[in-house]
Formats: sequence, C-alpha cells, structure tokens
Amino acid sequence: MINFQTAPEQYKHWKLEVSGPVATLSMDVSEDVTIAEGYKLKLNSYDLGVDIELADAIQRLRFEHPQVKVVAVTSLKPRIFCAGANIYMLGTSSHAFKVNFCKFTNETRCAIEDDSRHSGRRYVAALNGTASGGGYELAIACDEIYLVDDGNSAISLPEVPLLGVLPGTGGLTRLVDKRKVRRDRADVFSTLAEGLKGKRAKEWGLIDDYFPTSKFQESIDARVRLIAGSDSSEKPTVGIKLSPLLVEVKPAGVEYKYVTLILNREQRFADMTVRGPEADLPTTPDEIQKLGDAYWPLQAYRELDDALLHLRVNEPEIGLVCLRTEGNIDDVLAVDETLDANKDNWLVREIRLYMARVLRRLDLTAKSFFAIVEPGSCFAGNLIELLLASDRGYMLNNPDKIVEISVSELNKETFPMSNGLTRLQSRFLGEPERLEEIFGLDRSFDAEDAEELGLVTFAPDELDWEDEIRVAIEERTSLSPDALTGMEASLRFAGPETMDTKIYGRLTAWQNWIFQRPNAVGPEGALTNYGKPTQAHFDFKRT
Amino acid sequence: MINFQTAPEQYKHWKLEVSGPVATLSMDVSEDVTIAEGYKLKLNSYDLGVDIELADAIQRLRFEHPQVKVVAVTSLKPRIFCAGANIYMLGTSSHAFKVNFCKFTNETRCAIEDDSRHSGRRYVAALNGTASGGGYELAIACDEIYLVDDGNSAISLPEVPLLGVLPGTGGLTRLVDKRKVRRDRADVFSTLAEGLKGKRAKEWGLIDDYFPTSKFQESIDARVRLIAGSDSSEKPTVGIKLSPLLVEVKPAGVEYKYVTLILNREQRFADMTVRGPEADLPTTPDEIQKLGDAYWPLQAYRELDDALLHLRVNEPEIGLVCLRTEGNIDDVLAVDETLDANKDNWLVREIRLYMARVLRRLDLTAKSFFAIVEPGSCFAGNLIELLLASDRGYMLNNPDKIVEISVSELNKETFPMSNGLTRLQSRFLGEPERLEEIFGLDRSFDAEDAEELGLVTFAPDELDWEDEIRVAIEERTSLSPDALTGMEASLRFAGPETMDTKIYGRLTAWQNWIFQRPNAVGPEGALTNYGKPTQAHFDFKRT
Repeated sequence: MINFQTAPEQYKHWKLEVSGPVATLSMDVSEDVTIAEGYKLKLNSYDLGVDIELADAIQRLRFEHPQVKVVAVTSLKPRIFCAGANIYMLGTSSHAFKVNFCKFTNETRCAIEDDSRHSGRRYVAALNGTASGGGYELAIACDEIYLVDDGNSAISLPEVPLLGVLPGTGGLTRLVDKRKVRRDRADVFSTLAEGLKGKRAKEWGLIDDYFPTSKFQESIDARVRLIAGSDSSEKPTVGIKLSPLLVEVKPAGVEYKYVTLILNREQRFADMTVRGPEADLPTTPDEIQKLGDAYWPLQAYRELDDALLHLRVNEPEIGLVCLRTEGNIDDVLAVDETLDANKDNWLVREIRLYMARVLRRLDLTAKSFFAIVEPGSCFAGNLIELLLASDRGYMLNNPDKIVEISVSELNKETFPMSNGLTRLQSRFLGEPERLEEIFGLDRSFDAEDAEELGLVTFAPDELDWEDEIRVAIEERTSLSPDALTGMEASLRFAGPETMDTKIYGRLTAWQNWIFQRPNAVGPEGALTNYGKPTQAHFDFKRT
Repeated sequence: MINFQTAPEQYKHWKLEVSGPVATLSMDVSEDVTIAEGYKLKLNSYDLGVDIELADAIQRLRFEHPQVKVVAVTSLKPRIFCAGANIYMLGTSSHAFKVNFCKFTNETRCAIEDDSRHSGRRYVAALNGTASGGGYELAIACDEIYLVDDGNSAISLPEVPLLGVLPGTGGLTRLVDKRKVRRDRADVFSTLAEGLKGKRAKEWGLIDDYFPTSKFQESIDARVRLIAGSDSSEKPTVGIKLSPLLVEVKPAGVEYKYVTLILNREQRFADMTVRGPEADLPTTPDEIQKLGDAYWPLQAYRELDDALLHLRVNEPEIGLVCLRTEGNIDDVLAVDETLDANKDNWLVREIRLYMARVLRRLDLTAKSFFAIVEPGSCFAGNLIELLLASDRGYMLNNPDKIVEISVSELNKETFPMSNGLTRLQSRFLGEPERLEEIFGLDRSFDAEDAEELGLVTFAPDELDWEDEIRVAIEERTSLSPDALTGMEASLRFAGPETMDTKIYGRLTAWQNWIFQRPNAVGPEGALTNYGKPTQAHFDFKRT
C-alpha cells in the first residue's frame, strides 16, 4: 500500500530549509529508497515516493511557513539537478501506475503554480547541474529558471528522442503556453536528446539566465534576496503545524475522523462519506489558528484528499465512488460564513485554496462519482461541491423525510475547477441565468426544487430509491473503465480551457495513448529497450 | 488506394437535390458498396467511402450552389436516419485507419459548421428515424435537430455502453460545448445504449423538437421554408463547377498541375512542392468566376488538399513531409491582393475559406512538416502559411542566391488555425509586437531578416545547407512516430482552445488511447465482441 502521508523529519529525498523569508528545497535522492523493487534512483531521478515528499514540502511551506516569500528549488548532488522520472521504474510499471504517477506529479507541479499565483510565493529553480525530462519540467513549473554554465550542464526533454514517449508532466504545454517558446524552437528542443546549454537556452526563452560555476550560488542568492526584498506584503510570522492524519485502514475500507471509505470490492464501487462540522466552530482567525489543523475544513479536506489518493493508487479496481455527506446543513453553512468573512486572513485563504485543490483532485480522478443525497446529509456550501463534481446526483424525494441542499457564498467563486470556471458555471454553461436564480433564492432546496433547478440528475421517490441506485451502480460498474475515463474527461470540463486542462486533458490523453503503443512499451519499444544493448524498432505508420 | 475525389453523379450513398434556396442531402447507403472487404453497410451505417461523398456534397454546395440558404440532412431509409460508423468496419480496421477515418469524419463535421458560421447556410438535421452514434454526431454538427416521434425512433450515443469506445466524431464535446447539455444529463445519455426519444431528448436539449410521423415531413418543410424566408441576404444565382482534378499517380509519387508529391519511401519522407500562380491572373470577380476552378488559389489548394489526404491514408509510412514552393513571389502577392480586394464577393470568400480549411487540414495531419526555403521558392502571402504551419523552417542563407519570403494582407486574419489564432499569432504568442514589426516593414525578407524576425528556425549557409537538411531528415524519420504525433499535437496549438481543438486535441487523443486498449480491441474487448454471441470481459482498473 502506498502511503501519501509524510513529514520533513521523514524525508529521504528532499531537504527543506527555511531561513526568514527564504526557503530552500533541495533534492538529494537516496537511490536505494524506492517505492517498488527493481530500480535505483540514480542521478536524482525520481519515483512516486520522491514526489510525495515534494508535494508534502510545498503544502507545508504554505501552512507551516507562511512568512516564506521565495523558494529556491535546487539539488545537493554535484553537476546534476534532476534526471527526471526514473526510466526503469516507468519501464517496469503497469499502465495504471504510470498514469497515476504522471497525474500526481502533474498535480504537484500545478500546486507550485497555485502557490505562486494565489499566495504570491515565488519559486526559483536553481539548476546547479543538468535538468533533463521531469527535471526540466519541475524547473518550468517554477517562476524563474537559472542554469549553471559549467561547460556541461544542460536542460533537455529527451523523452521523444530517447524513450518514444512524451514528457509526462506538462513539459510540452508549459514550453509553448507558459514560457511561450516559439513552436519551431520547442520542436527542435524536444527532439534533441542532449538538450541545450545556457546561451541558446536563454536565447530561446527556455531559462531566464545562466551563471558560471564560480558565481552560480552567489547569483542565485542575490536573485532570491532581491525577490524577497521587493515583496513588501505583510506576511504572518507563525504558521500552523500539519500533524499526521489518524487513519484506520481496515480490510474493507479506511476510516478517518471525518471521512469514511467503504470498499465494496466485489462490486467494484466504494461508499465515501464525508461528515460535516460540529456546531459552534470558531469564527475568528485567532481561534482558527489556535485550532490549527483540527479545524474542520482543513482536517476534513486533508482526509478527503488522502482518501482520493488512496482510491486512485491502492484501489485501482474500484470504478465508482458513491459520495455521501452526514451532518447538519446549518453547521456547514456556518463554517462557510466564517471562511467568507475572514477570507483576507492568511490561514483562511490557504484553507480555501487547499479546499479548491482537493476538489480539483476529485474532478481529475478517473473514477465515476455518483452523489447520493439522503436524509441526514449536508450537501451545503463547500460540500455541495461534492454533488456538483459528481457525474450524477441522486436525491431522495420523500415528503416525509425532507432532504435539503443549499448553496453558500463560497459556491460563487471560491472553488474553481481546472478550467477556471466554478462547478456551477460549468454545469449551467447553457443557462447562466440559473446561477442568479439559485443564489437569489436565499434558501435551501428540497428534492423537487433541486431537480427543478438542475442541481441533481434524478430525484426518485422512496419506492424507487433503492432499486434505482442499485441498478445505476450495477450498470456503471459493468461498463468499460477506459471508455468511462475518456467520456468523463470530456464531459466534466465543458467551456474554456486553461494550461491546467490542457495538461490534464490533452497532454495526458496523448501520453496515455503513447504509453500503450508497442513503439514505446512493446518488446521492441523505445522505453523497453532504453539502457539495453538492444535497439528500439518502430512501426513507422503515421496518419 | 483510396481516392478522395468523387462527384454527385457518382454518389452511391447520398442524394443531393437542390431546389431554389433549399438543398436536401439524403443518406441512402448502398450496403454492398464498401471501401474494404468484410462488412455490409446496414441501416445507413457508414465507412470512409460514405463520408467522402458527404464531404464532397458539402463542398459542392458552397461552390456550385451558392444560392442555397438551408440544407436539410435526412435519410431515404424508413425508420432509420443513420446508425453511425459501421462497427464491423471499425472492428476489422487497423489502428492507423481508424484514426484517419475519425479525423476525416471530424473534418467533414467541422466543415458543416464552417459553412454555417462563415457562409450563413443553415443545416437542419431531419431525423426521420433513429440516429445512433455517428448518426447523432452528424445531426449535432447541424444547426438544428428534429426527430420523428413514431414511438420507436431515438437518438443515442451507444459507443461507451455497447462498444467500449468513445463517440469518435466530436459527439461528447458538442454535447456539452455546443448544445451545452448539462454534464450529468450528458453522462446519462452517453451511457444509455437505447438512447432517448423525442420528449426527454428535447427536454434535455439534445434535439430542438420532435414531430409525429404524420406531420414530420410537413413540419420539416415548414421549418426549412421559414429559415430560407428569414434569410434576406442577397445570394448569387450561379456557382462554379468543380471538375475532377487531373492526377497522375506514379510509383514514386503523385503529380498534379500545381502540386508534386515525391515519395522517398525507403527513407520514409516525402517532398511536396506547391507551384505558385502564373503572372497576370484575373483581378475581378467576373473574370475569376469565368476561370472557375482553374483559378490558381482554388485549383492549387484543391490539389494540396487531395495530396494531404492521399499522404495520410495511402502512405502511412511516410513520416515527414518536406514542403517546398516554386514560383514568383510577386505573382503570389498579386493573387493575394485580388483575394483581399474582392473579399466581399461570394466566390472569393468561399475560396479564402477553403484555403483556410486546407491549411487546417495540414495543421491536423499527423506527420512532421519541414519547410525548405530555397532559391526559386515563393513562400509569400498565402504560401508563407505553409512555412508557418511547418514544425520547422530551413532557409538557405546565400548572399549570391538571394531567397526571399514575404507576408501579405491575407496573413493578418484570413487563415485561422483550429485554435482561432492565425499561424503568426500562434507563433508569436510570447512576442505579439513581432506581428506589427513584420507587417510594418512592408518588404520581403531575406534569410537573415527571416531568422532575425523569427520566421524560420534555421538559416544555414551554402556550405552547411545540404548536410543540415539531410541530417535533420534522417534524425526526424528515426524517431518514434507515435511520440512525434503527440508532441506535434501539443506544440502546434499553443494558446486558446476552441471546440475544434477540443475535438481534435482532447477527444481524439482519448479515443486514440481507448482504441488501443484491450478492453476495446483485445480478444475479450467490447468492440471485438460486438454482435457476437460471446461477451466482452474487462480489466477494470481505473486511476
């Protein structure tokens, strides 16, 4: 079982140093500490275990070290920044694992950009040596890139020429969409196994600057100091501690404080229940900071995040998740009111941004989601996003047991999807006036309202309820999981596209395709034959 | 060899009737007239041959029948509109053929929307019977959809539930992005093998209306008359005839009047040369109309279009196309001036729109393109788009043999890519000021200018020229064709996304992936087992 929880004192591959407004995140991969057998993590190459630590470090920077204004990302290995994803690990992994690995590393890169965009922390990639493949992709997720000029170090995306696959962590998209490198230069760069060194890399916009070895560290330090000094915003001096989540893993599921996951493995679906907050939670920033990671929105969403990752990686055969909530609508709405009233407080801002990221993790999970809205549920405010994120919503329509759902101020713009729209905007792309109607009503909605307003898919009555849910589950889990994945990826993200949706939707789909092709993974494929005396042989058909 | 040329008098599957401002395009597939062996085109199902006729009919409507304001798309088979792409054809086709088939049908659907958007012709899908899969996808490419209410006829996208693949012709994207169907309803619809009948289909926005059998034809007629009547724009009364292209197919290539294609099959690359126009071509609409399809822009681009399709479908092993032009820059620029001065003339408008479609066909061709700019070439105006569409441009820098390239007014906005930007805008996404500079200079550019301005990738001198081209070709054709396809699809379309790029970039990539998966095409896959007594068995892993 792969565990996504870690903490700096357990890191095997990264070192996180914080000194006033500057953090240094240094990669120093322990080649023998791998998440699976059969490969060594040479040259600062990485596997999922290395990236879990990186994701943890970025998360902790935001919550535990809010005073940090600049993060320098570098390596402790001489002459090598990072060689990217470990090729032997990729070569020996199942398709599902490769896809999961790429998705998680993409989410981590997007989390860096989320921090930069929304919390203003600047990331500086200090490439003290060669950055190839995923190594350069990590750099290009940062705001600025500096490369040492030692006559040898280069940046490269050698996936196409050496492995017959694509850079899997957004490299191609960020080349032309983020750094806006000219497409013909991006073409040359992405087919050049040896990559480019400082001068041309800078000329082509692939890095921001390069410095000779003797001046590298002082140039980086100066740049980092300059950025930190030019950020005059008031930063909090004390963060909150993210403690380990208490998780009880049982044969049939996982139990957290606010999240329960029950695995119906035979039928290939899971029941996931999120419990709402207690009554009378704190309402001021000081009290919230005192409560720290035990504050419901933070703890419940951390648990949800962990449960989603667990489902993706450790439970591949679960194809459908039935999402339920339990609790009191008013208590959820009270929390949302607090989160809205204090949105300028740093911690509340970070919590809101984190909730948004967890909800995007759900959108991007390649399993079907049905929301089941029953008596005792609390699909209100932030938790109604679980219903809106689901592929379908079923709500019991029983006049004797009123079930209600409700929106809050937070559903207006706090939780954008990867496409930049809220889930309500995406849902009502064709009837934008619905949003005004829904927010204008200023009350909660029973099943008939909800169906009328388009917030749920079906609202069966008591008589049909159990059968309809049962049949829907049976039908869904009988369908081809691949076709469902492609279908859901197409239907979930209507409307505009962003760099994120391009990376997840387009680049990932191409990569998935190529990861299947004999030219990559067949006995004569490039990935299979990498590092062997044998050579790849291709089927050259193109369309 | 598959031939993409046809004409109404040769149609086996469609009937095109024109009566004043109304055209009726009726599907009546001859089940035995197939493009390959091993299947019958029952129930108005289609293969590439059927779609080649449809593409031809739409093209001819625009050029030969410009007076047409409304096109009714219907079927001559009782109780069936169209059953979509033939499943046995798909089941027995190679991966490359399936991808090519889907791409061409997508281009045809997009051509319908291009006609509607830019030439104002309205397409009315008159579903006189069931429209399933590609049948409904054809309908959803039209502006309006009407379904007969006979107690039986339905619309459906049964690909996911029955075949374990995706609707391959934009169905999912158009559901949520064009018709803006709510995502949960789109989810239900796309997993419902039997589809939906009139009432619910209308309620969910999948069709515009439904009529009982007895009133169906008269309702359609009335609607078509209403649309035709409400379009008060002046239409030309006489079109031009599109004659068959004269093509000489030789073992080593294809020869047209203005296009030469030489196939270096051993080395897996092609040399494609487009010859520029003669001097003193007509400059007035009347003269152009008299010249008809012999007018250079129309004939040269028709030949280019045909050559691209030939390369895609009949020459799958060709991985790289070296694009050259031959002619006089001033003659190309003179044509562009005429096309600019007369852009309000219907025929000139259609020619410009057609040139834009052909150039998009090039962008979407999954082969590498290198533009080779040598003495005697005429990469100017509309033809510089060939250079800008290429993955790389090589231009000889020889002071003794001046080579020049040039832009024209037409490069400003006449030829948008599928992403809605011109090729120059896409190229200079990071330096939009370049466009002003390039258009401001008002002169042609030699190799040093061109390199300086970013219009070519490399400008080697005479000494290096041959070696550099030769090595570039050898390197390119040695790489994994799948990886190149994914890479080029990612780098060619920087910037915004449109419904078209979603269909080509995202949906197609997912479909390509699924078309490879054992769950679809393996011995136990759904596509393989369709229509057999055996049942599909899935590997249920999801991520």
